[in-house]
Amino acid sequence: MISQHYPSQLLEKAVQEFSKLPGIGRKTALRLVLHLLRQDADDVAQFTTAVSTMRQQVHYCRVCHNISDTDVCPICSDQRRDASTICVVENIQDVMAVENTQQFRGLYHVLGGIISPMDGIGPGDIEIDSLVARVAGGGISEVILALSPTMEGDTTNFYIFRKLAPYDVKVSIIARGIAVGNELEYTDEVTLGRSILNRTPFDGK
Amino acid sequence: MISQHYPSQLLEKAVQEFSKLPGIGRKTALRLVLHLLRQDADDVAQFTTAVSTMRQQVHYCRVCHNISDTDVCPICSDQRRDASTICVVENIQDVMAVENTQQFRGLYHVLGGIISPMDGIGPGDIEIDSLVARVAGGGISEVILALSPTMEGDTTNFYIFRKLAPYDVKVSIIARGIAVGNELEYTDEVTLGRSILNRTPFDGK
Repeated sequence: MISQHYPSQLLEKAVQEFSKLPGIGRKTALRLVLHLLRQDADDVAQFTTAVSTMRQQVHYCRVCHNISDTDVCPICSDQRRDASTICVVENIQDVMAVENTQQFRGLYHVLGGIISPMDGIGPGDIEIDSLVARVAGGGISEVILALSPTMEGDTTNFYIFRKLAPYDVKVSIIARGIAVGNELEYTDEVTLGRSILNRTPFDGK
Repeated sequence: MISQHYPSQLLEKAVQEFSKLPGIGRKTALRLVLHLLRQDADDVAQFTTAVSTMRQQVHYCRVCHNISDTDVCPICSDQRRDASTICVVENIQDVMAVENTQQFRGLYHVLGGIISPMDGIGPGDIEIDSLVARVAGGGISEVILALSPTMEGDTTNFYIFRKLAPYDVKVSIIARGIAVGNELEYTDEVTLGRSILNRTPFDGK
């Protein structure tokens, strides 16, 4: 496509900034910017304020490293939750995904990444030491590893497992198997093989 | 999908604002916001400043109503362009599209919309009177109608044509026919029919 000639540098600058966002090309960026241009100045101010306030004021929970408006996040400070169980996840979206299942009443630990030598991310770059410190602090009976079933996830699982070995804590991993609704025929053989090895008793329900 | 529980109200507010943009759902909005959260504070400030400066300071060319940083846009103030020919388009994107063809050296007139009774947009809501005033002011030999070939476009074309009838100005319309690269077989019959009626001499080149 021929390079666009923008009639206004202010417009061009705004389009440039929008197109830095992931998955937003120049054409989409222009559409978004022209949309904002048609909105009330107050609405646009609300948009930019929300973004800059979020970036400046949001911080991370001292305990689980989840995003939070307070020093300790609402989940960690909720007395009704089971503080003896920690679910280890890669990022904030994963906390939201597990919360949405409404199947977990314990606390979280957000690693903020996953061990990935290809991307230059080692154990020291993510929140593993703080996890070990939480377990060493006592009161934790189980750590559930809920990372993605990828090579990097497996590496991270194994590293954490080794680090927690000296402590009296149960380490478990979320079940891997055929996704609900998927056809057996089209399931990859590794998943299918594991789902057979890790079969669970069927209680007829 | 179950409603998301955001761990931070600041995050939620930013996601809400992003998801007001056209074509951006909650999930994409969250992805964009978490991306911004990982960027340097300076980069995020640059983003929000570009957007708010654009909204506050951009204005429209006094002559053609295209977006502009100056009172009269660079196209209208370019002495090398043919000021006797005006290309009438619906919006700013259309100016950019025509400019990209590099086939037009005249000036523009941006209507800022199209007559659409269904959407409650009448002739008075778009820049038709100012177009007539430009023609009435003299020095214009041709007005090229470059609106989309839709019912609304045709209505607007016809309305402008009638409004310009009292003046000594040639009114033309961009060619409608088979798009370059399209298969004849799959071209709709209205387009194909018109392209036969509006056939042009073939010079063998």
